[in-house]
Amino acid sequence: MKFEEVTKKENLIFDGKVLHVYCDDIVRPDGKAAKREYAKHLGAVCVVPLTAENEVICVKQFRYAHHRMFLEIPAGKLDYAGEDRREAALRELREETGALCETLTHIGDIIPSPAILTERISMYLAEGLTFTETEFDDGEFIEIVKIPLAELVEMTMRGEIEDAKTQTAILKTWYLKNK
Amino acid sequence: MKFEEVTKKENLIFDGKVLHVYCDDIVRPDGKAAKREYAKHLGAVCVVPLTAENEVICVKQFRYAHHRMFLEIPAGKLDYAGEDRREAALRELREETGALCETLTHIGDIIPSPAILTERISMYLAEGLTFTETEFDDGEFIEIVKIPLAELVEMTMRGEIEDAKTQTAILKTWYLKNK
Repeated sequence: MKFEEVTKKENLIFDGKVLHVYCDDIVRPDGKAAKREYAKHLGAVCVVPLTAENEVICVKQFRYAHHRMFLEIPAGKLDYAGEDRREAALRELREETGALCETLTHIGDIIPSPAILTERISMYLAEGLTFTETEFDDGEFIEIVKIPLAELVEMTMRGEIEDAKTQTAILKTWYLKNK
Repeated sequence: MKFEEVTKKENLIFDGKVLHVYCDDIVRPDGKAAKREYAKHLGAVCVVPLTAENEVICVKQFRYAHHRMFLEIPAGKLDYAGEDRREAALRELREETGALCETLTHIGDIIPSPAILTERISMYLAEGLTFTETEFDDGEFIEIVKIPLAELVEMTMRGEIEDAKTQTAILKTWYLKNK
C-alpha cells in the first residue's frame, strides 16, 4: 500500500502503569528510514449522564499533566485489555456519580490523538438515572456538578470546555436529541 | 486547594522529538505519595477548509501508532513552542491542501487527553478558499478527499470518523452554520 509505514524494529522505551512508550524504527512509503514515537494505552470509556430534566452530571477534577482542574463528563480507563466497554461505562458512571441507568446507548468512539497515542475512548449516553452512593477510586478526588445540556452546548461553542471527549459527546448528544 | 496534586520530583523518562515522557513523584490531596505518567507535546492546529459549495477538504493519511489510514481534517504540530497558532494553521492548510483562505476563524481548542498528554489543538474554520500547489512535509504522504459538510456530520454521527479533532471541529462548524 503506497501510504504504509512498515515496522523495522519495535523499541519499548518506557513500560509504565498507564503509558507504554515506543520509539520504533520504521520504513516510510518512499523507502527511507525514520523513527515514530507513540504511546500505547489500554483505552477508556466516558458517559453523558442525562437526567429527566435534561441536565448532564459532570465532574471536576485535577489533571496533573496540566496542573489544574478540568470540567469533564464521567470517564475512566479500562481495568484490563479487552474489558467489556459497556460494563466499564456502567462502573465509571456509578463510581463517579453514584448513578445507575435504565438505558446506556453507545454514541461512538473517539481516538484522541491518532498520530501519537493508541487510546480509544468509547462514548455512551446514560438515561433513566437513579442514584446510589459514589465510590471513587483510591486517589480520585472529584467534584460533581449538574449543568443543563443546552448550557453545556453553549459552553462548548464558546470554547469553555477543553476536554475532547466532553466536547464531542455533548455535541453528539445535543444533535441526537434536537436534530 | 483540596484537589491539587503537588510535584515532589519531576522525572523525565524519554526526551523524544515529539513526545517528552515524564513519570513524576507527586503528593495526592490526601497526603499520600503517588506517581503520575504523562507526555509533554508542543501542541497542534487543525483546519476545516470549507468550500463555497459547503464541501470540506479532508486528508487521508497513515497513522503508524494504529497501523492504518485515518480520515481527518488538515492538521499539524507547531514548529516550535509559542509559534503563532493562526500562522501554523495557514501553513498546514497550504501545505496539505494547497489552499489559501480569505477568512480564518478560531472555533475553539481541544485538549485530546487531559490526564496523560499536554497537547492542545487549536481549531480553525477556513473560508474563501483559492488554490495553489500542495507542499507536503518531508515524509508526509497524504491523499486529499472533498466531502460535503452535511455528509461529514452524518459520518460523525454514525461513528465513521474516529479522530477527536475532526469530530469536534465538524460538529462545531455545522452548529455555527445551521443553528
